[in-house]
Amino acid sequence: MFAFKNFIQIDKGADTAIYLQVVNALIQQIRRGQLRSGSKLPGSRELAEVLAVHRKTIVAAYDELMAQGWIEMLPRKGTFVVQDLPEIKPKKLKQSELGMPYPAQTIFAIQENRVGSFPAAVIPDPKALIINDGFPDTRLVPNELLLRELRSVSRQAAFRKYHMYGNPEGTDYLRETLSGFLRETRGLPISAANVMITRGAQMGIYLTAQLLLKPGDQVIVGESSYFAATLICQQTGAHINRVPVDEFGIDVDAVEQLCKKKRIRLLYVIPHHHHPTTVTMPPERRIRLLELAATYKFAIIEDDYDYDFHYTSNPIQPMTSLDHHGSVIYIGTLSKTLVPAIRVGFIVAPENFIRAVANLRMAIDRQGDSMMEIAIAELYRNGTISRHIRKVVNLYRERRDHFCSLLTDRLGDRVSFKLPDGGMAVWTKFNDSDLRQVSAKAAQKGLIMSDGQRYNTGATNYNSARLGFASLNLNEQDRAIEIMAGCL
Amino acid sequence: MFAFKNFIQIDKGADTAIYLQVVNALIQQIRRGQLRSGSKLPGSRELAEVLAVHRKTIVAAYDELMAQGWIEMLPRKGTFVVQDLPEIKPKKLKQSELGMPYPAQTIFAIQENRVGSFPAAVIPDPKALIINDGFPDTRLVPNELLLRELRSVSRQAAFRKYHMYGNPEGTDYLRETLSGFLRETRGLPISAANVMITRGAQMGIYLTAQLLLKPGDQVIVGESSYFAATLICQQTGAHINRVPVDEFGIDVDAVEQLCKKKRIRLLYVIPHHHHPTTVTMPPERRIRLLELAATYKFAIIEDDYDYDFHYTSNPIQPMTSLDHHGSVIYIGTLSKTLVPAIRVGFIVAPENFIRAVANLRMAIDRQGDSMMEIAIAELYRNGTISRHIRKVVNLYRERRDHFCSLLTDRLGDRVSFKLPDGGMAVWTKFNDSDLRQVSAKAAQKGLIMSDGQRYNTGATNYNSARLGFASLNLNEQDRAIEIMAGCL
Repeated sequence: MFAFKNFIQIDKGADTAIYLQVVNALIQQIRRGQLRSGSKLPGSRELAEVLAVHRKTIVAAYDELMAQGWIEMLPRKGTFVVQDLPEIKPKKLKQSELGMPYPAQTIFAIQENRVGSFPAAVIPDPKALIINDGFPDTRLVPNELLLRELRSVSRQAAFRKYHMYGNPEGTDYLRETLSGFLRETRGLPISAANVMITRGAQMGIYLTAQLLLKPGDQVIVGESSYFAATLICQQTGAHINRVPVDEFGIDVDAVEQLCKKKRIRLLYVIPHHHHPTTVTMPPERRIRLLELAATYKFAIIEDDYDYDFHYTSNPIQPMTSLDHHGSVIYIGTLSKTLVPAIRVGFIVAPENFIRAVANLRMAIDRQGDSMMEIAIAELYRNGTISRHIRKVVNLYRERRDHFCSLLTDRLGDRVSFKLPDGGMAVWTKFNDSDLRQVSAKAAQKGLIMSDGQRYNTGATNYNSARLGFASLNLNEQDRAIEIMAGCL
Repeated sequence: MFAFKNFIQIDKGADTAIYLQVVNALIQQIRRGQLRSGSKLPGSRELAEVLAVHRKTIVAAYDELMAQGWIEMLPRKGTFVVQDLPEIKPKKLKQSELGMPYPAQTIFAIQENRVGSFPAAVIPDPKALIINDGFPDTRLVPNELLLRELRSVSRQAAFRKYHMYGNPEGTDYLRETLSGFLRETRGLPISAANVMITRGAQMGIYLTAQLLLKPGDQVIVGESSYFAATLICQQTGAHINRVPVDEFGIDVDAVEQLCKKKRIRLLYVIPHHHHPTTVTMPPERRIRLLELAATYKFAIIEDDYDYDFHYTSNPIQPMTSLDHHGSVIYIGTLSKTLVPAIRVGFIVAPENFIRAVANLRMAIDRQGDSMMEIAIAELYRNGTISRHIRKVVNLYRERRDHFCSLLTDRLGDRVSFKLPDGGMAVWTKFNDSDLRQVSAKAAQKGLIMSDGQRYNTGATNYNSARLGFASLNLNEQDRAIEIMAGCL
């Protein structure tokens, strides 16, 4: 009986009901081999006294253990641990393990990613001064309007069916709305059947890579290119071929040379604002790339992650709008238009691709958050998203200009950059300082900025970073560049 | 000039600005080889007259085309399509294609899933009478409370950092909250570091399979088992081994036999309410399974998708709470507690597994919707979720009892079933009618119900279905079974 008092430690202040604490403790003792199969348990009155709890508590605990199959009550004999439990060798437990230990490691081996890992996500203190990779200013987002729509659509009977399971392609309502919006604004002659709603651009790239690539397949990306897309392709076992990137985007001659040598399966490109360098690909290269894709029958992922944010003209129409052959998988996102933490993006592609990719998505997360999708559709329909885009594009243009003036005026020859036509970042090369040291010094002075490592490929150290200007107002930019100047 | 009038079709009622319609039409003509590299374009005044639009519209269109690199203006010579475009052979287009066609098919081949597809998601008319697979009643969900929290947390400065990109493991706030909740209610001695927030149980299974399995690996599932989990494992190229399922769940002797013959990598099991048959695994088998996993060093996925809904006792504590070796990956979801359309679930596992699986998740969709995760954490903290569970468990118990009475009273010997201890469905065998015919007849009479096909494996036609009772009130159950009785 003394043993029972020792291992059943009642915590009357805990949220777990006391009878359940008794249940849990007894199950643990059985599991550990301390209470053997067939052992007799004390009577409820006896145990209640030892533990200083009400007898009803022990009765409830025994009832529960019986219902779960751990103990049995034999008439006129008493209460016993059930007979058929496997023999368990009692474990010697350290005192520290008495409170139900949880294993620190898996017993089975985990094969770590064969091809490198994503850098750990770092969430800086939001009050810190941060030059990010080129993200929107979350303070400007029409969050309240989105939540109002969310509330409104969740009450409407017409949308009730979207509370239950839905389609992996996304809710028809948003697909219909978005295809109309893309027809009108991006010249894509598509219908809802060409649209799949995803969890941001990332999922679009992942699904496409998973669907199209198998080990040994040949993929083309730029040198340099968006690192996450490269990792996603590598993880399928595909082989990555890099072609140079100049001020007009990826080198199409180099693509053609590769096509003559190897059977290319997929090319990943960001023609609008190349990542990381932000350059825009002119019509000549776009058309040549499309012709190559048609000739050599490879797929193009056109990642257009920040389409709306172009400052010198209207945004350039996607390459997809020029594709007559069905070569291009067009990927977009709302993470830059709304907040990054709301994960909604899309794939535009021929119907056979959408069908296949939707089937794959069933395996991954089945579907999106339908009510959120409907609410976003309403924001498109009532013009909120268009108005928001117009507003922030004007603001971001001003921020880009101010930021680039600061770079020129305060940092001068110590950095090189080209005014970006669009996007939310300036690709900045540090000419005479090691960017890792700049970043480390800046952190000490309260400015969080990239050390440039994630833009480097195995072949090249660019000593450059995307300096995001969009999330900082002019005053914050002044402070940030002042600190940076002190670190060069 | 006449040609220009023909292919630039202005729609003054369209949402696209007229100058952009002109831009789009001219780009399409260039792309199609109708307007060749170096061609001279009409003057703005001339084209404006032909198209019957204001001259400023054409000037704006030409400015845009210049900014985008399609045309160039040569002083005193006029406006020309740029010189360096690749030679494009003009395409003969059918009249129907004039309005900018979009390809119907990809030009590259798509390798369809080698191992079978998910059945197409069917979204029935919500006003129809539906016996589903065992889903909650979405009418009961505390949606309003969730939205109120969402609004509240989106306004709080403390949560502002969650608007930006976050951790692939989920927001720390929900991980912390959920680990506390699972410690108290399920006896899992875990900390926040053992929890990853996913998009429902489906993503938990997918991530685990992707992380652990490679082609040729050996997996054990029940005969029958949850079909989606099997498909997910198959898609990695793993080999599926089936062991029998009886009234106590999967046959552990058969598991042991397999372990002696093959090197098992993963076992998928639903010990609480086996899918599809709803049976609960008793302690003896749980302990033996854990010992086998430790001996043969395989991983167990414990899918506990409807933990809260148990009617004869408290829910049975997860097998994970008995695992001292680090064999079990525990997967849960809120889809059944809240609405299926809000995709939040979780994985509980040793820390090394959580780290590896979070890295994989970075590739897939990067992270969850942070504000939604925070709002759900608040629902846990203020007791809303616990209260909701208590309420619906009582209601669902009543619905289960009524439904099973109806099955007995109205269908009698024509069906066989066992009263389920928990879950939201009754596994029902149709003794003398072909379930596909019953389902087809029922549909004609306004009742949508499963035809049982998705529960069948290659080996077995069960002629059985999970009949979901939870989403129907008593009156709806009466009507549904009445219709079904008329179809047998």
